[in-house]
Amino acid sequence: MNDQPFDLDPAVIDRFAAIVGDKYALRDQADIAPYITERRGLWHGRTSLVLRPGSVEEVSRIMRLATETGTPIVPQSGNTGLVGAQVPDKSGHDIVLSLSRLNRIREIDVLSNTVTVEAGVILQTLQEAADAADRLFPLSLAAQGSCQIGGNLSSNAGGTGVLAYGNARELCLGVEVVLPTGEVFDDLRKLKKDNTGYDLKNLFVGAEGTLGVITAAVLKLFPKPKGREVAFAGLPSSPKDALSLFTLAMDRAGASLTAFELIARRPYDFTLKHGQGITRPLADDWPWYVLMQVSSGRSEEDGKALIEEILSAGLEQGIVGDAVVSASLAQGDAFWNFRETLPECQKPEGASIKHDISVPIASIPDFIEKAAGVVEGVCPGARVVCFGHMGDGNLHYNISRPVDWQDEPFLELYHPMNKAVHDVVRSFHGSISAEHGIGQLKRDELLATAPPMAIDLMRRVKAAFDPAGIMNPGKVI
Amino acid sequence: MNDQPFDLDPAVIDRFAAIVGDKYALRDQADIAPYITERRGLWHGRTSLVLRPGSVEEVSRIMRLATETGTPIVPQSGNTGLVGAQVPDKSGHDIVLSLSRLNRIREIDVLSNTVTVEAGVILQTLQEAADAADRLFPLSLAAQGSCQIGGNLSSNAGGTGVLAYGNARELCLGVEVVLPTGEVFDDLRKLKKDNTGYDLKNLFVGAEGTLGVITAAVLKLFPKPKGREVAFAGLPSSPKDALSLFTLAMDRAGASLTAFELIARRPYDFTLKHGQGITRPLADDWPWYVLMQVSSGRSEEDGKALIEEILSAGLEQGIVGDAVVSASLAQGDAFWNFRETLPECQKPEGASIKHDISVPIASIPDFIEKAAGVVEGVCPGARVVCFGHMGDGNLHYNISRPVDWQDEPFLELYHPMNKAVHDVVRSFHGSISAEHGIGQLKRDELLATAPPMAIDLMRRVKAAFDPAGIMNPGKVI
Repeated sequence: MNDQPFDLDPAVIDRFAAIVGDKYALRDQADIAPYITERRGLWHGRTSLVLRPGSVEEVSRIMRLATETGTPIVPQSGNTGLVGAQVPDKSGHDIVLSLSRLNRIREIDVLSNTVTVEAGVILQTLQEAADAADRLFPLSLAAQGSCQIGGNLSSNAGGTGVLAYGNARELCLGVEVVLPTGEVFDDLRKLKKDNTGYDLKNLFVGAEGTLGVITAAVLKLFPKPKGREVAFAGLPSSPKDALSLFTLAMDRAGASLTAFELIARRPYDFTLKHGQGITRPLADDWPWYVLMQVSSGRSEEDGKALIEEILSAGLEQGIVGDAVVSASLAQGDAFWNFRETLPECQKPEGASIKHDISVPIASIPDFIEKAAGVVEGVCPGARVVCFGHMGDGNLHYNISRPVDWQDEPFLELYHPMNKAVHDVVRSFHGSISAEHGIGQLKRDELLATAPPMAIDLMRRVKAAFDPAGIMNPGKVI
Repeated sequence: MNDQPFDLDPAVIDRFAAIVGDKYALRDQADIAPYITERRGLWHGRTSLVLRPGSVEEVSRIMRLATETGTPIVPQSGNTGLVGAQVPDKSGHDIVLSLSRLNRIREIDVLSNTVTVEAGVILQTLQEAADAADRLFPLSLAAQGSCQIGGNLSSNAGGTGVLAYGNARELCLGVEVVLPTGEVFDDLRKLKKDNTGYDLKNLFVGAEGTLGVITAAVLKLFPKPKGREVAFAGLPSSPKDALSLFTLAMDRAGASLTAFELIARRPYDFTLKHGQGITRPLADDWPWYVLMQVSSGRSEEDGKALIEEILSAGLEQGIVGDAVVSASLAQGDAFWNFRETLPECQKPEGASIKHDISVPIASIPDFIEKAAGVVEGVCPGARVVCFGHMGDGNLHYNISRPVDWQDEPFLELYHPMNKAVHDVVRSFHGSISAEHGIGQLKRDELLATAPPMAIDLMRRVKAAFDPAGIMNPGKVI
């Protein structure tokens, strides 16, 4: 393979560049660098051209030329994806298509509770715009300050708001997509109900840019809660307590239960040890913790009464050992900050092998028990760091190296550890990628372990929508 | 065309019959009759064979033989669909595949809040089984005593529970599908989050049996509300009041607002006049009415307080003229009965032309005003009968003939009336089939009026999944 990233025909590059203008056609490797390396540095590719179109029309012309010249296109928005879907491969044949200049919020319709937004809008910008319109856009995740809506939709992003409001797919009512041929599929509907044929929207959402380029979408907005109460609870024995508490909380709060996060003792301790400006949420230590949030459309008092009712019942039933309800918005934010700092605080403990998995909620306690056994089998002394969105059946099941190991020998166990954990996931009919997607990271495993029928059907979809195979090749399927 | 329905090769019929056994291979036209006529008698087709398989394995063998012999298959479950999707055409070439013997509830998982259910289970049976397990299965519609889950999924059924719980698609976590080739696609997942490739499930849901045969599904269950309060409100001026009241109710109740139905004065009066055992909900007459339901996971008192808070605020703001909250479960049921009797009570008023439409919620008042004008243009004196699931933007916008007309001349206006109303729908970027689907009824209109790009993409999906075109031909696309 050529080490120089100039594998595209210069005449073709010129034609692409002419569509967006020289200013927005990056050819200098210094300018290109931020687009070919993912932020953690885990994925690194090559290209000789990054295009930054400023309109849907330009995206359309780019795709038309890509089809004509057989040039592979890698769509990219915020470049925060965790599975390498938005990064070109090392061949140097791909062009990166950055959507970040398509950053208009086209319309907020407060009465219909919808927002029409372009792919390059930063998630936090959208959250703030919704807030200013007295509405809630509930998608919320660690990268929200830099991730963009196009990537959120293409990866069907999850995060902490899924329990009550759904993932990116469920928040999306309509899409505008530029197809590989350059044709624009305008499906920007604001409709909650529409049974006029096949569900095309949900094919593009979650397709990681392999079927077309999402350039805009209609997303749902929600009334802004008037009360938002956060509690931190310590559980006395096992994840079974957490399952009982979740069932109890769902029973009382229903869709007012807006978060239910499980945290094991080890990540809790890591955060107390390594976190900056972290306050200990509970006086005593417990084997498991839950961060729970209840939202009320009526008032703070109503939310507080509801969350206290749930916790009291939990204490009475012995499934909660101790709990504290945030006394202020600031304390609620501190609890959330504790939760969001967990991944960061795993780093000082050395190399880790991570898994973004989901299982049926009822299987979470058994999964945790069984997985701990196989982890110990692969690497005695390895430290399980388990936390996640329990209400969605989604755990970030990470493994830190044994205390007395170096990083490298542990990371050599990456594949056997992955396989061992994922085999347990599969034994519970779970998912090896609950919210991060497939990208490059899990493509081989998906192809090797998914039901052949599923792979066959996905390949038919891919061939039907992208017969020339120019949309983000080497990703997902 | 042959008047006798024996267009299939008798040797082929014998081979199909051998799969299910003679008892379940209906060849006698008297036995076949209920399967080829839709209950209202609007759709009537022909066939010489109805197959009633008793297992997924038999469905698989039927489809394999159908592929081998090029025999078109029309899947059918409860035969209550309103657009003719489940009825064979008049050619006599199709075999009807009835799923009604696949009627097992395979598993209720109360902790994961899921039920795994076969296509032939009657909706009400499922509701009752969920109830017995202290859970709610919220899909609810007029035909629930006879419609079956396979049809509910294939038509992406809506109904009165969509506002808080979603339509059939949103209630479905996984499917088991027999493909045209007879291969079984087992995708019966209980996972709320699973980002491992393209969303195949949502292609089969809502495809009206044109891509494969749904034989089973994993559906969501919910905690059973402890309080369910129903109110009937009279609105003083226009649908704008209803929009304001809806916004107010959503703001206070959020997902606890479990129904918001709009009813115009005319269907209200028809129901008072023609309904059996109907009680007048409100003392005075109002131009518009709303049936609203609030559910509480905490208690009846909590639900009552919430709904009264909403109505008080509505009265104060002048958008509610009068309202009554059900004093008992029985009165709540009576309010619902009033709502559900509306379609029935339109019949004694003579022929009607119906529309199942949706528009963005904010556009409902303008739609109602504009549509009334075009109806009067097509047929002066025609009576608009407007009611529906306002919270979903979905109206059943029906037109009864003028009082002094006969049925037939009015029904001759079917096509111009449809076109006029649907043109208004399209001008608001709405849907001409919000919850009933396309089937045979709206296929030509869909093909003629949908964006060509949407039709092209749907055709590609159809060709990718059913290249031989044997799945429910002539429906949807």
